Amino acid sequence: MEKKGCALGTHRVLEPKGVLPQPATKIDNSMEIYDNEIRINVETLNVDSASFTQIKEQAGGDVEKIKEIMKGIVAERGKHQNPVTGSGGMLIGTVEKIGQALKGKVELKEGDKIATLVSLSLTPLVIDEIHEVRIDIDQVDITGKAILFESGIYAVLPEDLPQNLALSVLDVAGAPAQTAKLVQPGHRVVVIGGAGKSGMLCLHEAKKRAGVTGQVICLGHSEKSLQRPEGLGLADEYIAVDATDALAVRDRIAEATNGEMADVVINCVNVNNTEMASILAAKSDGLVYFFSMATNFTKAALGAEGVGQDTTMIIGNGYTKGHAEISMEILRENPPLKKVYQELYS
Amino acid sequence: MEKKGCALGTHRVLEPKGVLPQPATKIDNSMEIYDNEIRINVETLNVDSASFTQIKEQAGGDVEKIKEIMKGIVAERGKHQNPVTGSGGMLIGTVEKIGQALKGKVELKEGDKIATLVSLSLTPLVIDEIHEVRIDIDQVDITGKAILFESGIYAVLPEDLPQNLALSVLDVAGAPAQTAKLVQPGHRVVVIGGAGKSGMLCLHEAKKRAGVTGQVICLGHSEKSLQRPEGLGLADEYIAVDATDALAVRDRIAEATNGEMADVVINCVNVNNTEMASILAAKSDGLVYFFSMATNFTKAALGAEGVGQDTTMIIGNGYTKGHAEISMEILRENPPLKKVYQELYS
Ligand SMILES: NC(=O)c1ccc[n+]([C@@H]2O[C@H](COP(=O)([O-])OP(=O)(O)OC[C@H]3O[C@@H](n4cnc5c(N)ncnc54)[C@H](OP(=O)(O)O)[C@@H]3O)[C@@H](O)[C@H]2O)c1
Ligand SMILES: NC(=O)c1ccc[n+]([C@@H]2O[C@H](COP(=O)([O-])OP(=O)(O)OC[C@H]3O[C@@H](n4cnc5c(N)ncnc54)[C@H](OP(=O)(O)O)[C@@H]3O)[C@@H](O)[C@H]2O)c1
Repeated sequence: MEKKGCALGTHRVLEPKGVLPQPATKIDNSMEIYDNEIRINVETLNVDSASFTQIKEQAGGDVEKIKEIMKGIVAERGKHQNPVTGSGGMLIGTVEKIGQALKGKVELKEGDKIATLVSLSLTPLVIDEIHEVRIDIDQVDITGKAILFESGIYAVLPEDLPQNLALSVLDVAGAPAQTAKLVQPGHRVVVIGGAGKSGMLCLHEAKKRAGVTGQVICLGHSEKSLQRPEGLGLADEYIAVDATDALAVRDRIAEATNGEMADVVINCVNVNNTEMASILAAKSDGLVYFFSMATNFTKAALGAEGVGQDTTMIIGNGYTKGHAEISMEILRENPPLKKVYQELYS
Repeated sequence: MEKKGCALGTHRVLEPKGVLPQPATKIDNSMEIYDNEIRINVETLNVDSASFTQIKEQAGGDVEKIKEIMKGIVAERGKHQNPVTGSGGMLIGTVEKIGQALKGKVELKEGDKIATLVSLSLTPLVIDEIHEVRIDIDQVDITGKAILFESGIYAVLPEDLPQNLALSVLDVAGAPAQTAKLVQPGHRVVVIGGAGKSGMLCLHEAKKRAGVTGQVICLGHSEKSLQRPEGLGLADEYIAVDATDALAVRDRIAEATNGEMADVVINCVNVNNTEMASILAAKSDGLVYFFSMATNFTKAALGAEGVGQDTTMIIGNGYTKGHAEISMEILRENPPLKKVYQELYS
């Protein structure tokens, strides 16, 4: 008889008591399932970009040290939640066992290959062995197991797309899906970090939604990385500027928009201190969508007030309805983009 | 001849170079003005609630220690930005000098009594002496001077309202003004921290906007503090529960709404770890407005994803158009509320 579990997974929380699995500092990662859980044979972890950057830095780029740090995190917390960034990532694997209470209620069967769309920062995980660290694409192949709670979201991997590609895209699926919802015809849109993984997907959606009467500006750090979106024709304008330099960003966007500034700014960078650039790139009553996990709440809130801007600022929820479908569809709609993602991330 | 200054005050930034005054760790607080600045004779500082709570704790409640800590912050940074919370507050004072480039361009004259609506976390400040610490209302009377940048917002203090009252209300004016914009007729609204300074103003606006077909729920920590909004009839429902206990909040709101949950949740607390309660109090596609400066970006972003909720989460910008007028108007519309504020905060 399996034990009865809470939909949110609170039955796994060890420390501190009474919180949810995400804010918990330690959760129970024993692999016997509760009646509403799914156990997964894990193949690959896709570590959140902000988290992996931090781990790589801490390890000085050494692969064995990266493995050690990752195993240490899981041993300590029962989940792969980076103690510095607070963030996780996601995984792919095969459904090994479905709890009694869920059978027939979920469209899954044992043996299905799925990606979990819920953060690793709350997912009970055991790493038996780390096989390969694909250091440039934040992916790590392991032997291990994980638990998906009843409230946890997942996607069965599409058969027409390579699995590592699907995983890379699903990890950032919230960003293009939100872009699709926020951008209106005629909007001027700035995507900060537009040459990155989430950034290019956002550019595709922004251009589709803003249409011919709109303007889509891709802002990246280096001329070199901007060649990617430029080669794909994802934006109307490409600007290389350091997004931590708020004043430079303001000036460059003013120039590109004849001083109008942006209706919508999508922040997809993986570094600190880009809140102010995002705010100043937008119109006084514009909207900023912070997908970047490196966003600091206080800096954004006080930053906008400090310059007297009536900016609407949205916290990038990793989940929005239909986000897996929307992101997969982008790859089908845009074969050249799919090709670039395939080369870069799988 | 006064020197030419930047509208955003970047000419005052000492460390690190090239950032704006708010993220700067040190700004120039010399009191000679640039041509687009306004110098103010400061009377009272209204320290941000999260910041003052931290200072009081660090001082163990000792008034002399509080003074020392506050003077230390200003000596170190050239502005009253709490190094732990990152937040500031606001001030009232008298316009002493208006820069050449601003004269005639602003509706201000020397001698006007104003409140700055821009955070102390970016305002050049000098404290000559601290006279009185009003420990229960986060206000501190000083002799000192401050600088307002060209982009800085302010309000001339209304003549029909006592000045300390106006100051208290203006400090949190963004919250009720945003509530007014977000709440629609028929909405179910939860105000977390509804018995507090910003909370009661939000309740007033929420009830006005949600109307008879809506439902406004006031959530507070203690039965005792809930007596205040209850005595004023500000909400339809009053619930005493610890907002750091996400599951208890979810259950109590489910009970009060027949399992429907809230369309809009306004978070006005001054403590950490209430992100999850806010998310779970809302419908899956509901909206959470985080006015609390104790909000953690990552906890909110990953928290919503973790429970599979498509929540729209807004970062509480302290400024929104007309916020001073909206908040002052509440006091005129609701004389019993005005009386309570007068007793509590002035
Ligand atoms: N909200 C959520 O649920 C969620 C989920 C997943 C990921 N995320 C977050 O989303 C962010 C982006 O992820 P990603 O996978 O798209 O990252 P990514 O592929 O590494 O892209 C980051 C981009 O930011 C650019 N960038 C870095 N520093 C910059 C600077 N100073 N100025 C301008 N651009 C700069 C990089 O440009 P160069 O290539 O020129 O260096 C790069 O193109 C991360 O912070 C991640 O944590 C959030
Ligand atoms: N975004 C901005 O620009 C901006 C500007 C100003 C202020 N703020 C922020 O707004 C927040 C509220 O400010 P305020 O002046 O309204 O503060 P306040 O008057 O101190 O009110 C805080 C309220 O939170 C309640 N509370 C505290 N802990 C709680 C818990 N565990 N569970 C439930 N309720 C709890 C308190 O209830 P009890 O009375 O029962 O203890 C109190 O009513 C602060 O975080 C402040 O930093 C933001």
